Amino acid sequence: MSAPLTVYPIAGLPEVLPGDDLAGLFCRAAEQAGTALADGDVAVFAQKVVSKAEGSRVALSEVRPSERALDWARQWNKDARLVEVVLRESRRIVRMERGILIAETRHGFVCANAGVDVSNSGTGDVAILLPEDPDRSARRLRAGIAAATGRQVGVIVADSFGRPWRNGLTQAALGVAGLAPLLDLRGRADADGRPMHVTVIAVADELAGAADLVCGKTRRVPAALIRGWSGLLEAGGAQPGAGRDLVRPAEEDLFR
Amino acid sequence: MSAPLTVYPIAGLPEVLPGDDLAGLFCRAAEQAGTALADGDVAVFAQKVVSKAEGSRVALSEVRPSERALDWARQWNKDARLVEVVLRESRRIVRMERGILIAETRHGFVCANAGVDVSNSGTGDVAILLPEDPDRSARRLRAGIAAATGRQVGVIVADSFGRPWRNGLTQAALGVAGLAPLLDLRGRADADGRPMHVTVIAVADELAGAADLVCGKTRRVPAALIRGWSGLLEAGGAQPGAGRDLVRPAEEDLFR
Repeated sequence: MSAPLTVYPIAGLPEVLPGDDLAGLFCRAAEQAGTALADGDVAVFAQKVVSKAEGSRVALSEVRPSERALDWARQWNKDARLVEVVLRESRRIVRMERGILIAETRHGFVCANAGVDVSNSGTGDVAILLPEDPDRSARRLRAGIAAATGRQVGVIVADSFGRPWRNGLTQAALGVAGLAPLLDLRGRADADGRPMHVTVIAVADELAGAADLVCGKTRRVPAALIRGWSGLLEAGGAQPGAGRDLVRPAEEDLFR
Repeated sequence: MSAPLTVYPIAGLPEVLPGDDLAGLFCRAAEQAGTALADGDVAVFAQKVVSKAEGSRVALSEVRPSERALDWARQWNKDARLVEVVLRESRRIVRMERGILIAETRHGFVCANAGVDVSNSGTGDVAILLPEDPDRSARRLRAGIAAATGRQVGVIVADSFGRPWRNGLTQAALGVAGLAPLLDLRGRADADGRPMHVTVIAVADELAGAADLVCGKTRRVPAALIRGWSGLLEAGGAQPGAGRDLVRPAEEDLFR
């Protein structure tokens, strides 16, 4: 039997502020929770806490909405400043109807509001943006964890996205470091000895989703630790890869 | 701190044949693996093993392909009999280009080849279809597990689907019994006290994905057991719901 996979919620982080050492805060919280890091663990961080630590934010009071943002906001009863931030974060608008704005971000992610979220900082409303480069964020967090603990772990920076055709959000991996985001089984034989033709598993998204199950949305649990993921071993000598590998190139996508 | 979530692979099931008592086989395999079922566990079954037990299959030798199937098969070097089965299983063809056939099944799932897979039964090639009613399959498995062990568990019947915009497959929940597939947080306050407007989490899909991480595709691990999922408690007095709740109605879908 393969070993089980265990997903630990990592609570107890303080409110994260720009410039904070998120890796250090995570390691201390994990240790205090009795789940000190081990080699091969996977640390999953909610995008929002990563963006907060990186200062990836805009004060809405300083945003001057364009005509386009004003129009849309009037039509759908939205905050025009927030709409303006969403439009600026978008490389392409995929759908803009029924009050829903689905955009392709500069990273290539397709999601509601270009991943922009509103938060109250205590001094007014602030739009939290996606990290500028989630893969770089993941690499930095991985290096920070190694510096703090000496442990080599995988890191995922995750956010919850909607999907066409299905209700509800699932968490997906935006940034990845230290693990292969895709498990490529093409060419291997299945249990019947038949070669499998289209079996590439987005394991980083499944790991991100598993983390979401313990993080919840109303509790202050911005991170999770996953133990028992053997993906690094299965990937063999291959390069671990990055979150951008999960973005399907436009020319291979039937739904752009 | 919330409790951790643990995902156990359940291996050791024999090759499943039509009419087999899959619930009973699962309970025995779980017990032999040292993970006897407890109340509140979630059992996740790969669709393929459920379909095999239910006899949801077609012998390709008995299929007469239509002209449309023959044309497509010639153009893309496919097995016309298999294409014919896919077309019969489809309520609507969503995309049919570059050799890729993405269909909406009669259940409303949008997936490659209408979820049809090929398997070798020993007597020739057999197309394995999705279960006729995956929610009914899940309810029967749940009742079978209760009969065999006295335990009240959640059950998910799962399959791996591709997604627009992102590379790789993730496992999704087709049939659900005994648990709420969607965790509806709308109206609850987030950690900042701000009401959350669009936060419905597809937890059954995230549970299905977590199970996929231990099941793998080349090993004979057709099922998993998830312990520590508190979703039943969080759903409070609400009806648990079904896998069909995860299918977004066409009129609310911007991508049909």
